[in-house]
Amino acid sequence: MTAKTVKIGLVGYGTIGTGVARVLFENADEISARTGFRLELSRVVDTDTQSPRKFNLPAGILTSDLQALLADKSIEIAVELVGGTGFARELVLNLLQSGKHVVTANKALLAEHGPELYHAARSAGRCIAFEASCCGGIPIISALRTGLAANRITGLYGIFNGTCNYILTNMTNRGAEFCEALKEAQKLGFAEADPALDINGTDTAHKLAILSGLAFNRPVGMEDIHIEGIENIDIFDIRSGQEMGYLLKLLAIGEKMPDGGISLRVHPCFISAGSPLAQVKGPFNAVSLFGNAVGNVMFYGRGAGMMATASAVAADIIEIAMGNSQRLFETMPMASGSVEGAFRSIDEIDSRFYIRIMAKDEPGVFAGYAQILSNHRISISGAIQHEWDGPDGTVPVVITTHSAPQRNMNAALKELERSQVICGKPICIRIVNIPEDNES
Amino acid sequence: MTAKTVKIGLVGYGTIGTGVARVLFENADEISARTGFRLELSRVVDTDTQSPRKFNLPAGILTSDLQALLADKSIEIAVELVGGTGFARELVLNLLQSGKHVVTANKALLAEHGPELYHAARSAGRCIAFEASCCGGIPIISALRTGLAANRITGLYGIFNGTCNYILTNMTNRGAEFCEALKEAQKLGFAEADPALDINGTDTAHKLAILSGLAFNRPVGMEDIHIEGIENIDIFDIRSGQEMGYLLKLLAIGEKMPDGGISLRVHPCFISAGSPLAQVKGPFNAVSLFGNAVGNVMFYGRGAGMMATASAVAADIIEIAMGNSQRLFETMPMASGSVEGAFRSIDEIDSRFYIRIMAKDEPGVFAGYAQILSNHRISISGAIQHEWDGPDGTVPVVITTHSAPQRNMNAALKELERSQVICGKPICIRIVNIPEDNES
Repeated sequence: MTAKTVKIGLVGYGTIGTGVARVLFENADEISARTGFRLELSRVVDTDTQSPRKFNLPAGILTSDLQALLADKSIEIAVELVGGTGFARELVLNLLQSGKHVVTANKALLAEHGPELYHAARSAGRCIAFEASCCGGIPIISALRTGLAANRITGLYGIFNGTCNYILTNMTNRGAEFCEALKEAQKLGFAEADPALDINGTDTAHKLAILSGLAFNRPVGMEDIHIEGIENIDIFDIRSGQEMGYLLKLLAIGEKMPDGGISLRVHPCFISAGSPLAQVKGPFNAVSLFGNAVGNVMFYGRGAGMMATASAVAADIIEIAMGNSQRLFETMPMASGSVEGAFRSIDEIDSRFYIRIMAKDEPGVFAGYAQILSNHRISISGAIQHEWDGPDGTVPVVITTHSAPQRNMNAALKELERSQVICGKPICIRIVNIPEDNES
Repeated sequence: MTAKTVKIGLVGYGTIGTGVARVLFENADEISARTGFRLELSRVVDTDTQSPRKFNLPAGILTSDLQALLADKSIEIAVELVGGTGFARELVLNLLQSGKHVVTANKALLAEHGPELYHAARSAGRCIAFEASCCGGIPIISALRTGLAANRITGLYGIFNGTCNYILTNMTNRGAEFCEALKEAQKLGFAEADPALDINGTDTAHKLAILSGLAFNRPVGMEDIHIEGIENIDIFDIRSGQEMGYLLKLLAIGEKMPDGGISLRVHPCFISAGSPLAQVKGPFNAVSLFGNAVGNVMFYGRGAGMMATASAVAADIIEIAMGNSQRLFETMPMASGSVEGAFRSIDEIDSRFYIRIMAKDEPGVFAGYAQILSNHRISISGAIQHEWDGPDGTVPVVITTHSAPQRNMNAALKELERSQVICGKPICIRIVNIPEDNES
C-alpha cells in the first residue's frame, strides 16, 4: 500500500516545536504503519531561524515567512506553538481562514478565547484539535471524547500542574519550605522563570476549563471556576496533615451533582494518603474520572515536557489526517451554545476542613473555639494540640471537621479571627474525599 | 440539530448485553450531545427471551430470531456478546457477510481467530471493533490506536485479570492460602465457576495478544506468548517477597528490544512494592506503557463487570457510528500480513530471580547451592535464611539474583534439584524491574 502524504506546517519552533519535528521524523515508520499516512513536515515558521535546536530540520524547511505558510494550499494541517493569547489568537484565526485545520497546545488561548475560535473554525469548515493542551502526553481528551463517550461523567479530579506537584512533593518528602522548593523546581526546569500562573492555580484552571467542558458537555469559562493557589502553604500544615493520614495536593475538581448542578474548583487540599492520586509524585500529572457506566478510571503520565507534549500534538495531527477529529469537532458540545447544568458557587459546596489556629495557652481556650465552630453548625471530627510553644506563648491547634457548607466555614473563620482566644488568622485547607469505586 | 439515528443489533442478552442496553437507553442524551447521533437498540437476540434481566427492554426488541437480525438491512452495527470461540466465530462471519460492522468483547475469539475475522471484515468492507475485549472500561485500545499512535512503544506491563489480582491481593493482605482466596473470589462473583482460564494465565495472554499486536504493529498469536499461571503460588513466597520489598502480581509483559526483537510473556512475578502497578488492588486492571515520545503512561480502572464492559462496547458503537473505527481498521497492522520484529523465546530473556529452596540444615549447604548458581554464572543479590524448621529437618532459604538469562537459570534449577543439599523442587519466581521514567 502506498501511503498517502499529508503536509504539515508548524508555527513556533521552540522546545515543543522541536519535539514535534523529532517525533514526526523519527517515528515516521510507526505512524505510517498505524495510519497508512506519511506525515510530511513541510514548513516550520519561527522569527529565529538561526539558533541551534535539539533537532536539525532538513534544509529549506525552517523559515521566518509566515505568509508563505498561510498561502501554501498543499498544507492541510497547521500546528500553533507560539504560546500566549494575543498573537496566537490572530494566528489561529488566520490559519483557519486560509483553510487549514489547527492543532494547538495552548491551554490559555482555548480557556480564554475557546468559543470565538471554535466558532471561527466551524464557519471555515475546519477543526481545532487540542490534546496537547491538557496533561501533556496523557490522551485524556481523546478518552473523554471517544473511549468514555457513552458515560455520564459525575466527577473529575486531577493533578494538572507539574510545577505545583513537584513543589508539594518536595515539601512533603523533604520538609522543604515553599520558597526553597520553588527555587529547586526552577533550577531543574520544572518551573518557569515567572511561575505565577502555575502556583496561583491559573494554569490548572485553564486545563480544568477545557476538560470539564468536554466532561460535562457545555462551554466553561475561567469565571466559572473557583481558583486558589499554593503560594501560602506552610510546611507546618503539610506535616500536621500527614500526621492525620493526609497528603496535600493542588487539585482540579469538577463535580456534577445529582440535581444537575456543576461545581468547578482549583485549590490545595488534603486527600487520603492511600488514595491513588496521592501516589502521583514530582512533575507527573494524573486524572481520575468517574463515569456512571465505567466507574473509576485513572490516567497517569508526564504532564509536560518536550517529547510528551509532542506525542499529543502528533496524535492530533494523525487524528485530523484520518478525518476523525473533524467529525468529533462538529458535534463538540463545549463549542456550541447548548448549556447543560448550572454552576454552583463555592459558598454552596459542602466540604470537610482542616483548620489550624495559633491559640493562647490558657484555660477555656479549646472550649472557646469549639463553641465558635458549633455556633456555625460545624462538627469537629479530629483535633491535635501538641505541647509546643509558638510565638507569643501560643500553641498550634489543628482541627478537622465533618462536612459543612463553605458559607458556614467562612462565617466561623471570621468569628474565630475576631475572637480573643487565637492569634493571627486561622489557616483553613479543605479535605477532599475522592469517591471510592467499591461496586462489585 | 436533529440527531441522525443509527440502528444497533445485539446478540447475547446476558450480563454484558444487559449492561449495554442500559447504557444505550439511560445515557442516550449524553451520547447524543457528544456525537450528534441517537443510537437505537432495535433488535436483541437471545435463545432465552423469558428470564428476568436487570434491565427491561421495551416490548418487541428481545427475540430469539437471529435470521431476522441478519436480514434487517437497517441495522448497521451488530454487537456479538455470546462468548466462546465456536458459534461466536460463525456468528461474526455471518454478521459481516450480512453487511454489518461488528463490535465484540470476545478476547478469546480475537486472540485465536483474529486474522481470519479481520480478513473477512476487510473483504466485506466492514470493520470489527473490540475495545471491550481488553481491560473492561479502560479505553486502552483507543489510546494505542489514536492518543499514542505517534509513539514507538517499547514496553507494555499490565494487570489484565481481575480474578488473579483479587486472589493475589487477598493472599498478600490477609495471608489467605491460594485455595481459600480463590473460593472467596468465586463467592463474590469475581471468578467464574470454572476459573481455569483465569488462573492459568490464558485470559491474560488473550488480552496481551490483542494489545501487543496493536502496540508493536504486527499479528500476534497465542503461540508467540510464554504463559504461566498463579495456581502454584505459595503464601510463604508471597510473605518472603514482601520481606524483601516486593509484591507478587500476575503480569502481562510485552517488550521491544533495541534490536527489534519482541518478548511476550505472562507469568507471576515480583515487582517493587513502590511501583505504581503494585498499588493496583483487588479486581482492578492497569496498563503501564512506555513510548519513545510520551515516556511512561498508566491507565487504571475496572477490568470487568457489567457496566464497565458495557461502557467500552458503547464506545465502539459510537466510534463506528462516527466512521472513525472504519478508517482505523483499514490500516490496522495487526490485521495485515506485515510483520515487524521477531519473537524471542523466554529462554533468551534476561531476568532477575527469586529462588526458594528447602535446604538441609547442615554445614556446607549454603556454600553448596551458592556454588551451583555460580557454576551457571548467576550472581546472588540477596539471601534470607530464617531460623525456622521445615519438614524433614529442612530450612527455607530464599535467594534473589542479579539479572541472568532464563536458560542459565533453568540449568541451575535442574542441578539444584539433583543435588543432595536440598529437598524437593526449588521454587523460582521472576523479579521484574519495571522501568522508571526519570527523564526530566
